[in-house]
Amino acid sequence: MAIVRVGFIELWVRDLEKSLEFYEGLLGFRLERKEGKSAYLRGYEELEWSLKLTQGDFPAVRSLGFKVDERGMEEAQAWVEQEGLPHRLETDWGRPRMLRVQDPFGYPLVFYAGAEKLPRMLQEYHLYRGPGILRIDHLNLFSPEVERATRYYQERLGFRLTEYTEDEEGRLWASWLHRKGNVHDVAFTNGEGPRLHHFAYWLPDPMAILKAADILAGARRTNQIERGPGRHGISNAMFLYLKDPDGHRIELYTSDYLTVDPDLPPVR
Amino acid sequence: MAIVRVGFIELWVRDLEKSLEFYEGLLGFRLERKEGKSAYLRGYEELEWSLKLTQGDFPAVRSLGFKVDERGMEEAQAWVEQEGLPHRLETDWGRPRMLRVQDPFGYPLVFYAGAEKLPRMLQEYHLYRGPGILRIDHLNLFSPEVERATRYYQERLGFRLTEYTEDEEGRLWASWLHRKGNVHDVAFTNGEGPRLHHFAYWLPDPMAILKAADILAGARRTNQIERGPGRHGISNAMFLYLKDPDGHRIELYTSDYLTVDPDLPPVR
Amino acid sequence: MAIVRVGFIELWVRDLEKSLEFYEGLLGFRLERKEGKSAYLRGYEELEWSLKLTQGDFPAVRSLGFKVDERGMEEAQAWVEQEGLPHRLETDWGRPRMLRVQDPFGYPLVFYAGAEKLPRMLQEYHLYRGPGILRIDHLNLFSPEVERATRYYQERLGFRLTEYTEDEEGRLWASWLHRKGNVHDVAFTNGEGPRLHHFAYWLPDPMAILKAADILAGARRTNQIERGPGRHGISNAMFLYLKDPDGHRIELYTSDYLTVDPDLPPVR
Amino acid sequence: MAIVRVGFIELWVRDLEKSLEFYEGLLGFRLERKEGKSAYLRGYEELEWSLKLTQGDFPAVRSLGFKVDERGMEEAQAWVEQEGLPHRLETDWGRPRMLRVQDPFGYPLVFYAGAEKLPRMLQEYHLYRGPGILRIDHLNLFSPEVERATRYYQERLGFRLTEYTEDEEGRLWASWLHRKGNVHDVAFTNGEGPRLHHFAYWLPDPMAILKAADILAGARRTNQIERGPGRHGISNAMFLYLKDPDGHRIELYTSDYLTVDPDLPPVR
Repeated sequence: MAIVRVGFIELWVRDLEKSLEFYEGLLGFRLERKEGKSAYLRGYEELEWSLKLTQGDFPAVRSLGFKVDERGMEEAQAWVEQEGLPHRLETDWGRPRMLRVQDPFGYPLVFYAGAEKLPRMLQEYHLYRGPGILRIDHLNLFSPEVERATRYYQERLGFRLTEYTEDEEGRLWASWLHRKGNVHDVAFTNGEGPRLHHFAYWLPDPMAILKAADILAGARRTNQIERGPGRHGISNAMFLYLKDPDGHRIELYTSDYLTVDPDLPPVR
Repeated sequence: MAIVRVGFIELWVRDLEKSLEFYEGLLGFRLERKEGKSAYLRGYEELEWSLKLTQGDFPAVRSLGFKVDERGMEEAQAWVEQEGLPHRLETDWGRPRMLRVQDPFGYPLVFYAGAEKLPRMLQEYHLYRGPGILRIDHLNLFSPEVERATRYYQERLGFRLTEYTEDEEGRLWASWLHRKGNVHDVAFTNGEGPRLHHFAYWLPDPMAILKAADILAGARRTNQIERGPGRHGISNAMFLYLKDPDGHRIELYTSDYLTVDPDLPPVR
Repeated sequence: MAIVRVGFIELWVRDLEKSLEFYEGLLGFRLERKEGKSAYLRGYEELEWSLKLTQGDFPAVRSLGFKVDERGMEEAQAWVEQEGLPHRLETDWGRPRMLRVQDPFGYPLVFYAGAEKLPRMLQEYHLYRGPGILRIDHLNLFSPEVERATRYYQERLGFRLTEYTEDEEGRLWASWLHRKGNVHDVAFTNGEGPRLHHFAYWLPDPMAILKAADILAGARRTNQIERGPGRHGISNAMFLYLKDPDGHRIELYTSDYLTVDPDLPPVR
Repeated sequence: MAIVRVGFIELWVRDLEKSLEFYEGLLGFRLERKEGKSAYLRGYEELEWSLKLTQGDFPAVRSLGFKVDERGMEEAQAWVEQEGLPHRLETDWGRPRMLRVQDPFGYPLVFYAGAEKLPRMLQEYHLYRGPGILRIDHLNLFSPEVERATRYYQERLGFRLTEYTEDEEGRLWASWLHRKGNVHDVAFTNGEGPRLHHFAYWLPDPMAILKAADILAGARRTNQIERGPGRHGISNAMFLYLKDPDGHRIELYTSDYLTVDPDLPPVR
C-alpha cells in the first residue's frame, strides 16, 4: 500500500487550555484552529495540521494518521474489506475523506489523501516561537507482539525496516519502519499494548533540541523533561523526551539519516 | 523510471594529488580507494562511494550517476533503446553493472542498482575530519532549454518538481526536481550547456557550513570560497559554494525540507 | 582610569515606534520602560538597560556610556577638570549619577558607576524572543586621527590594545581597545568623525547570528542586512551588520577571545 | 593580589601514552612538547601551555597554576612570607619564574607572570581536531571548609564571588569565584579535601559540547562520559563531564556570562 508518511496524531487531553499552554505556549506549535473541544496545530514546515488535541475525560490516543496517495486510498479500502477490519469513512477540518480502521493489533489508524493546504510558514522566521518545531516525524508504538506487527506492517502496509534490536534468544525486540525516507514513520517496541510509547516532531538542528530543554527549564518545567538532550545510538538522531500535561510523551528529534536505497541493509 | 536518488559524480581533474588535498585534506571526504589515475571518495553517511576523481588533461564532468532499483535498470535499458540514445554497459569499483547513456540533452548519465557496501562510518565520530561531509545531495545543470529538459526529466525519468523560477515572460528559468524526498536530486538553470553548474553534498547542520568556511579561511583558501555562508530563498537550505582546484564548483548544503507529499504544490 | 566596560548607547531616532518594531519586535530586545519620548532596552543577560532610544528630529548619537567603579567616578571627575573638558552631572532612569563629558575628539562620553538592577532574565529562556540578544559588546568609532585617539584612550582612559591595522606607510589605520577582557569595548576606524561606525551586541553563539539573518529575511527586511553572516579576521568573531530604520548600524557579534593577559601581544 | 586568571594544571598520570591518546587523540588538545616523562598541551586559543601531564606511580594533582602580572609576583612573594607558607621558586618549559606555594588549605598553587608565547592557532581552523578545545576555564576544588576557603580566596587572593549555594542552615555549601571576568576561575565544593573535583576547558559553543560527546561515543568510550551534555543552573554554562584514563575529571564548558561589574550581585 502506497503510504507516503505519518501524517498526524489526535490525542485526548483532560484540559485543552493547559495542553495548549504546553504545545503552543512553550513548544511554539502553530495553533491553526480551535473549534468546540478541539484544537488543530502544526509545525512551521507543514502545510497541513498534524496534531489535534481534543478535550476528553481521560488522556488517550484517538487516531494515528497516515498520508497516502489517491491510489493508496483505494488500496486501503480494499485491504480493510479483505481483512474484515472495523472501519468507517470520516471527515475532519481540511480533510474531506479519511478512512478510519482498527488494525489487527488494535491501533486506531486513519488514512487520508487530499488535504487543504495552509499558508507556507517555513521561511517566516520572524514568526517562529519556541525551538522551531518543523514537522511530525514518527510514532513509536508498544506492542506485545513486535515480530508479528513488524512483519505485517512490512508485508501488508509496505513499510521498510531500517533498524531492529533482538533479545538474547534472537527474538525481535524493537523495530524501526519507514515510508518517507528517513529512519522511521513507525516503530514497535516490546511492551503492553496496543499503546503509544511516544510521537515525535522534527526540529531543524541539535541547537534547537538544546533550546527546547532551555525553554522547559526556564519555565520551571524540568519535571516534564523525561530524558535527554542526547543522541540515540539507533537512528543517530539527537532527541529530547518530554511529557505533556497529560503524560503523553512527545519526542523532539533531528538529524537521522537517508534510507531511500532499496538495498540499504537494516542495522541490527 | 524508478530512479532512487542521485548517486555519484565523476570528475576529471588535472592534478589528482592537489584535488585530494582539497577534498580529503580540507573537506574531510573519506578516501576509500586509489587506483591508477582514479580516487574514490565518500561522505560519512554513505555506504557507497559517491565522488570519483580521475586525472585527465583538462577538467571535465565524466559521469552523473543515478541509483535505481533492479526494475529501474530494466526500465532504463528499455528507455535508451526506445529513444535510440547512445549507451553502453560498464563496471566500476564495487558497481558491477552500470548503464552509461548520453541523454537527449547531452548529459552523461550513468544508472546503476547494486553496489557493494562499505563499512558504516556514520557514528564513527572520532574519525570525522573537516566539516563532516555526509552524503551527495544533488546536481545542478546548466541548460539552454530548461523548459524542455524539465518536462523530459519529469515525464520520462519520473522526477518531481518542487520549485521553479520564471522570467518576465513566464518562461521557465530554473527548476528543482527530486526523487529522494527533499528539494532536489537535479536542478536545471538557464545557461549555456550541457554543463555542470555545481554538485552538492549534505552537511549535518548549519554550524558545519560555518566550519567549512572557517577551514578554508584557516588554510588561506578564501579565494576558493565563491559565495556564502548563507541561506537560499529557494530550498531554504544553508549553503556554501566552493571552487575546487580545477574550478569545479561544489556546494555544501543542509536543512532543506521534506517533499514526499504527492499533493505538494511546487513553489514558484 | 578604572573603566569597567562599555555600558550603553543612546540614539536619537526619528520614529520611536518604528525603531521599537525593529529592536524589540524583530531583534527581541527587552523593552523595560517607555517614558515620554524615550525607550529603555536591554539584552537578556544584562541587569541594567544598555540601549536608550529617544525620538528626535534627526538620527544622532547622544551618548556613549561607560561603566566605571566608584573610584573611577572620582578619576573621571579629576580628568575632565584637569583637561578642561566640557562636562556636567546628569541622572537617568536607574542611574542616579552620570558624568557627561565631551572628550578631546568630540565623542559624547557618559561615565556612571551605580545602577539599579533589573530582574535577572538570563535563564528565562521561555521569554526569549528573536535571536537572543545578550549584552552590549562594543562601540566602533570613526576618527580622522586614529593614532592620536588610540594613544589617548590607552594612556588617559586605561584601555588596552588587542588588535590593529596599519596603512602601507605604517600609520595606524584602525585599532581595537578593551577593558572587559575580550577584543574590544571601543574601536577606532579611520574616517570622517567624530562619528559612530556601529555599536555591537553579543549573541550566545553563531547559530543565533544565522537566526537573526533568517528573522530579517522572514520579515522581508533583507535590505537592512548590510553584511554577513560571516567571521571577522580581526577579533575572530561571527558577525552580522544591520541597519536600523534610521540607518544606525548595529552589529550582532559573538565568539571572539579572552584578552585578560597583561602580556598578550596585540595582533597586527 | 593581582591574579589574572587560572593558568594551568599539572596532573600525574599512570600511563602517559594512554593519557595522550585521550587528551590529544580524542579531545584534540595540541601537544606542544614531550620531554622525559612530561607532555605539555594547550587549547587552540591559548598562547601558552595549560595542561601538563607527567607520568607518575599514581594519579595526582601536582600544580594548580595561576597567571599574575609582574606586580602580582611580588605580592605573592610577600604573601607567602607573611603567612609563613611553604614555598619555592621553580622554572618550567617557557615559564622562567614560578612561585610554588602550599596554601593554608593544602592546595598546591603555582604563580607565574611571564611566559613564552607559542604561535597563534586560533584561526588555523584547518588544523583543529576533536571538538575544538579553546582554553582552560576553571578549577573546581573539594574542601571541608568551603566558608573559610571562600573568604580567604576573596580577602587574601582577590577573587570575587559570583554564585554560591547554602545548606539548610545557611552555611556556605559551594562557591564560585573569578578573576578573569566570567563565572569562575576557582570553585569550592563541600567535600573531603584538599582535592580536585574537576578542571574545565572552554569550548567555542554548545555544538562543540555535543560533538565531544559524539566523539567519545564513536570511540566506544561512553564509560568515560560521566554526566551531560546539559546546561548548568549555576553559571548557565553548557557542560560535559568526562573521566580521563586515570579518573581525573575534566569538564568541557561553554557559554556562561560576563561578571566584570563591580556591583554584580552574587547569585544564590
